[in-house]
Amino acid sequence: MITTYVYTTEKSQMFLRTVAQLRSMTGYTATVTVRLKRGVLDPEAETTQRSLERLGFELDSLRSADRFEIDLDAESADDAGERVEEMAERLLANPTIHDYDVEVEER
Amino acid sequence: MITTYVYTTEKSQMFLRTVAQLRSMTGYTATVTVRLKRGVLDPEAETTQRSLERLGFELDSLRSADRFEIDLDAESADDAGERVEEMAERLLANPTIHDYDVEVEER
Repeated sequence: MITTYVYTTEKSQMFLRTVAQLRSMTGYTATVTVRLKRGVLDPEAETTQRSLERLGFELDSLRSADRFEIDLDAESADDAGERVEEMAERLLANPTIHDYDVEVEER
Repeated sequence: MITTYVYTTEKSQMFLRTVAQLRSMTGYTATVTVRLKRGVLDPEAETTQRSLERLGFELDSLRSADRFEIDLDAESADDAGERVEEMAERLLANPTIHDYDVEVEER
């Protein structure tokens, strides 16, 4: 029974994938920038700023952020954006301490 | 002798700073994006990509980068850009393994 089920699932996934390929899919690059929220301490950025000042540079402030560039195929820029936003919420950012923004460009 | 020298240096630095303030200084925010060069292994990005795939997301590739947002005062956008480029070369990026780009915006 289980084997049959797995087989059917695999077949239906293959079918869905073929359907997806028949629709026109476009390549997009989505950029996710993950920043610490205001008020969250960033000791790495503080150290970097102090090191720059020790080298003689004058600056008012420095913030650090993580950037992820994701290549994916999607039907539209909106579709790509939605999927990448879900990726950010589920894995790339921690909503307690991070803000993020997503930018989508055609490849 | 040393004390005199230090005193003079401090005085001249104060003088230079005053001169700088008399010239019209504008606030800029420079963004430095530091990426690994093509061919340099990025195990963190690979792990992130695999985790996303395990969550059911489909993606072609994922690259990670560091982003620094630096607030500074400068006479012009070109001046700000040059100073931040020097910061990138001297501290933020490692030229052996990193590429970087700098974007400057008025605050």
